[in-house]
Amino acid sequence: MVEQNRTAYRLNDIVARFGGRVVGDDSATINQVATLDSAKLNQIAFLANVKYRKQLETTGATAVIVSEGNVEVTTLPRIVCDNPYSYFAKLSAFLNPLAVFAAGIHPSAVIGTGAIISPTAHIAASVSIGEGAVIGAGCVVMSGCSIGAHATLGENTRLYPRVVVYHECVLGKNVILHSGAVIGADGFGIAMEEGAWLKIPQIGRVVIGNDVEVGANTTIDRGALDDTVIEDGVKLDNQIQIAHNVRIGAHTAIAGCVGIAGSAVIGKYCRIGGSAGILGHLSIADGVEVSSFTLVGKSILKAGTYSGIFPVAEKSDWLKNAAHIRHLDDMATRIKQLEKDIQELKRRS
Amino acid sequence: MVEQNRTAYRLNDIVARFGGRVVGDDSATINQVATLDSAKLNQIAFLANVKYRKQLETTGATAVIVSEGNVEVTTLPRIVCDNPYSYFAKLSAFLNPLAVFAAGIHPSAVIGTGAIISPTAHIAASVSIGEGAVIGAGCVVMSGCSIGAHATLGENTRLYPRVVVYHECVLGKNVILHSGAVIGADGFGIAMEEGAWLKIPQIGRVVIGNDVEVGANTTIDRGALDDTVIEDGVKLDNQIQIAHNVRIGAHTAIAGCVGIAGSAVIGKYCRIGGSAGILGHLSIADGVEVSSFTLVGKSILKAGTYSGIFPVAEKSDWLKNAAHIRHLDDMATRIKQLEKDIQELKRRS
Amino acid sequence: MVEQNRTAYRLNDIVARFGGRVVGDDSATINQVATLDSAKLNQIAFLANVKYRKQLETTGATAVIVSEGNVEVTTLPRIVCDNPYSYFAKLSAFLNPLAVFAAGIHPSAVIGTGAIISPTAHIAASVSIGEGAVIGAGCVVMSGCSIGAHATLGENTRLYPRVVVYHECVLGKNVILHSGAVIGADGFGIAMEEGAWLKIPQIGRVVIGNDVEVGANTTIDRGALDDTVIEDGVKLDNQIQIAHNVRIGAHTAIAGCVGIAGSAVIGKYCRIGGSAGILGHLSIADGVEVSSFTLVGKSILKAGTYSGIFPVAEKSDWLKNAAHIRHLDDMATRIKQLEKDIQELKRRS
Repeated sequence: MVEQNRTAYRLNDIVARFGGRVVGDDSATINQVATLDSAKLNQIAFLANVKYRKQLETTGATAVIVSEGNVEVTTLPRIVCDNPYSYFAKLSAFLNPLAVFAAGIHPSAVIGTGAIISPTAHIAASVSIGEGAVIGAGCVVMSGCSIGAHATLGENTRLYPRVVVYHECVLGKNVILHSGAVIGADGFGIAMEEGAWLKIPQIGRVVIGNDVEVGANTTIDRGALDDTVIEDGVKLDNQIQIAHNVRIGAHTAIAGCVGIAGSAVIGKYCRIGGSAGILGHLSIADGVEVSSFTLVGKSILKAGTYSGIFPVAEKSDWLKNAAHIRHLDDMATRIKQLEKDIQELKRRS
Repeated sequence: MVEQNRTAYRLNDIVARFGGRVVGDDSATINQVATLDSAKLNQIAFLANVKYRKQLETTGATAVIVSEGNVEVTTLPRIVCDNPYSYFAKLSAFLNPLAVFAAGIHPSAVIGTGAIISPTAHIAASVSIGEGAVIGAGCVVMSGCSIGAHATLGENTRLYPRVVVYHECVLGKNVILHSGAVIGADGFGIAMEEGAWLKIPQIGRVVIGNDVEVGANTTIDRGALDDTVIEDGVKLDNQIQIAHNVRIGAHTAIAGCVGIAGSAVIGKYCRIGGSAGILGHLSIADGVEVSSFTLVGKSILKAGTYSGIFPVAEKSDWLKNAAHIRHLDDMATRIKQLEKDIQELKRRS
Repeated sequence: MVEQNRTAYRLNDIVARFGGRVVGDDSATINQVATLDSAKLNQIAFLANVKYRKQLETTGATAVIVSEGNVEVTTLPRIVCDNPYSYFAKLSAFLNPLAVFAAGIHPSAVIGTGAIISPTAHIAASVSIGEGAVIGAGCVVMSGCSIGAHATLGENTRLYPRVVVYHECVLGKNVILHSGAVIGADGFGIAMEEGAWLKIPQIGRVVIGNDVEVGANTTIDRGALDDTVIEDGVKLDNQIQIAHNVRIGAHTAIAGCVGIAGSAVIGKYCRIGGSAGILGHLSIADGVEVSSFTLVGKSILKAGTYSGIFPVAEKSDWLKNAAHIRHLDDMATRIKQLEKDIQELKRRS
């Protein structure tokens, strides 16, 4: 990151603000977070996993965040708390607040008739806002974004450059959309008639709740008739494709490159691994975890961890083994026959 | 969708226009389509799948579209026709026409020397059009699109915001490109020499036929030497990657997140499921259907349905079974040995 | 490609410049490269793979590039060299230089305070450049790109339309970014606390070396604390997702749609096939080749080719065989029991 004159805080100031207790010199001052491996003077690192404990011996950190169980792993000044990782998250957010953008509309932005833009919103250069759109207080719409007619952005929602929100879509408060995200493009609705595909108008919307983050180049299609819905607190990584009429439950987190087909309903507090796929018109219960690269082809009705990952192998070994997959049915039949034969031989002997 | 004063039509007006016949009150009026589940007064739903028949008992729809075989499933006013789904598609397109954009060029658009733009085209704010490009009658190019030098858009082609068409690419009539689509970026052509990759200039184009729709953030690379070709009526969902020199036959439909490697030739009327992959330099016959998440690693020479999907499982079960895949060759050898031993024992006994 | 008055070169001029020797008429002139199949008068094709040899009989090419071993496959004028494919690459780059863009800043571009833009750079319409950014000599930044605050572009780096580079990211010399690429969006860092996800600020950068090419709609996330690093000469195809804190070694080439999870370290001169996946916090040695559609779920410590591809099959066959995968553990147990039983029977007989 860019070196700056950063404000420094003493450890006792930090625990007064965020809880926990200090062991060691509580007047030590820090101004940034870092990894154990790369931390320098006036930086604080954290130990969330004991496998990094060895790095405590060589770290340049001024202080460390540890759990109660690890109070004695270092003699450095340390903050002791229940959950070092979330403590670190909160402290980092405090030390690294989001960039501030001045309120106002850049003269090159184009604003449609009847659009309502909060005087505290920032509308950057080359932004287009459609007629009747509503941009809430404190919103930041960076350069080159396009907001369709009658779309709505809740308070403090932030769009990085080149985001597109189609007409009529609704975003809640404190939503973050990264560059290249496309919200509300037409779902893939087609019907075959007389040798050609008819397009089915996609007249639903995308409705996104509060505190949702959407990664770069992720796409969320508008509903065919009813809406596509992303509930509060959902976190989506980059290059995810969410088809029309999907519903994603609150606080579900989805890693990059996942594809979710039409009308799938995903529960709350699910965690979907990268490049997984979820077929259409199925349901996934609350609290389901799906491994990376796994295809969910039928509904999952109870919480748990589900997988369909294959092990990678040296190619010649792999080919030798994988070829037999085409003959598994034959192998199963032959095992059954062998069992019968053995029974017969045992009976005879 | 935004509530509006919508024009209402009587059922007998509708069948006069689209065919079929009315059973029940043919003066019932409707102004919008909807699902059985969410339909309200003056809306028409459809029954394409008998599993939704129960919803007929509680629907708020004023009328329903059904097939001849389902005439008696409801007492609501109904339109009876051969194919309720495509009937619904046509009726919805009639009730929900594409938004109209006024002809003209926004003053912030930048138009290159020698570009020919139809006076009936709409060119929005922050659009760049390269020198010698041709924009046909009735085209809509929304905000922030970039059209490269000497590219051509046929009549009534519509580009949603932030589409990029590279130089020299050709789009037919009635093409729709959704936001973030990139047409004509360089194909991935590299040659290794003396420890570094040489870039191979990509001097072919992308040529797209009529009535093609391309989803959000889909990418179609220009050809290395010859062109990449997308034939008439092809429908592409979001986040599809089509490499250089691919050819996709007319009326093929491809779901989201599919990757197609260089020089693959795909037939007409194929249907490719989401997140499938197709390796390079192979051919797929007309009328092939490929399941989601399936890798096509060799040519498919006749129509049919092809799959390589694995079932998802509870993770501990999965791991227990998947581990054996590394030993299938050994298992096969042992079965063969057992069969020999049994033969020997039978001979002896 | 667009037909132009192209400069023609005699074969003896070409070998004077690029090496090799001419067999046949060395005054034959060519002005463009082409495939054997589509070449016309004054075009030169190449034969890199003997399976295309038959096309030599019918090609319209004026000349051909062949290897020493294939000198006699044609009577056409020919350039004989060690590596026809890389020879062709260099010749094509000579005949098809990158488009030239005039130096200067378009009046509609918005330049932040303190940004340093080389007078030889081209900054197109609707570009936004943040405060303190540095744009090197000869850079081309096409329409609608957004360069964040304090970002740096090395000499002769070229951004196609609608690329986004977030704040503080560093690009080397001769880098090419295709449209829709997003460099430096936040990595997917979240921590659960009290039923909701906390966002972990992503304060690292993306640092890209020299001679790197990044395909359309590819995303490379900034580091959580330390940087994400792409070394010199790396070639990335379209729609690749690279998560925070990944490191990719020099001259590695990655095909389309690959996903790489956080903190993975990939060696030099690797080749990763399309739609492959690489899990987080693992290492891949130099010189590893990974097949398309393969998930790498653990570190690979030595060079070689690795695969996890399944064969596609006619769907009914596939389902029959794939179902047994859920019972492999049972099959293995039964084979073991059969082996015991056979031993017992042999002992008795």
